[in-house]
Amino acid sequence: MSIVRHADGTFHWEGVDVLKYKDEGAAPFKDVTRQVLFDTQDPPAQLRYFEVAAGGWTTLERHQHVHAVMVIRGRGKALVGDTAYDIGTHDLVSVPPMTWHQFHASAEEPLGFLCLVSSNRDRPQLPDSHEVEAISKPLR
Amino acid sequence: MSIVRHADGTFHWEGVDVLKYKDEGAAPFKDVTRQVLFDTQDPPAQLRYFEVAAGGWTTLERHQHVHAVMVIRGRGKALVGDTAYDIGTHDLVSVPPMTWHQFHASAEEPLGFLCLVSSNRDRPQLPDSHEVEAISKPLR
Repeated sequence: MSIVRHADGTFHWEGVDVLKYKDEGAAPFKDVTRQVLFDTQDPPAQLRYFEVAAGGWTTLERHQHVHAVMVIRGRGKALVGDTAYDIGTHDLVSVPPMTWHQFHASAEEPLGFLCLVSSNRDRPQLPDSHEVEAISKPLR
Repeated sequence: MSIVRHADGTFHWEGVDVLKYKDEGAAPFKDVTRQVLFDTQDPPAQLRYFEVAAGGWTTLERHQHVHAVMVIRGRGKALVGDTAYDIGTHDLVSVPPMTWHQFHASAEEPLGFLCLVSSNRDRPQLPDSHEVEAISKPLR
């Protein structure tokens, strides 16, 4: 990996591929991409950049591993537990273990955020279809 | 810790203290502050925000642990090994083990960057005074 990887001004980086967020059909989401910026041995961690297009949203899910998030582009909402928080550029979000969470871009612009996770992490759990409405209530 | 900690637009965050970069006299540096944004158990990692005032610079040092860096404010130079790289907002810098490195803000504006490190890391080594000139040569 190069020592310096320049950003191109559109939230893409030299030598960093734009990946699918998840396989289509694996879980509900809308208009999200994923880029792995760092993948380190010590700490065993990944720093990823997710971008949610205007009006899009990530999967509503929970898991044991924590997320440490910094928004670096745009605005939106973070649903974490029983609260929907307004978030904007440089805001920090901590997602605790086994807490339902979902990121929504605003209608007007993309929401881009860094997300630090352990390399050794459990798979997300999805809500049952009848649970989604209650969990999502703070967004309405 | 709060789930969301808002940024105030000046690279300060709710509930995050602005710390000394290092104790005065511990090592050479000029006009640097440190903020610990995340301190996680799994991964055992810290994500810090360093800000170097216009014209300032961090300590020239090396260590076994690696740095994963993203610039989020301003411009400057990163000396890593035998090269001085121009860096700007959102550029990524990887500092390999035991590689001399130093960050310099431009003369006009501060340089602010995120730096991901292991919680379990070795102490930095400083160059002997007669080594500094040779190591710093790429900056001139």
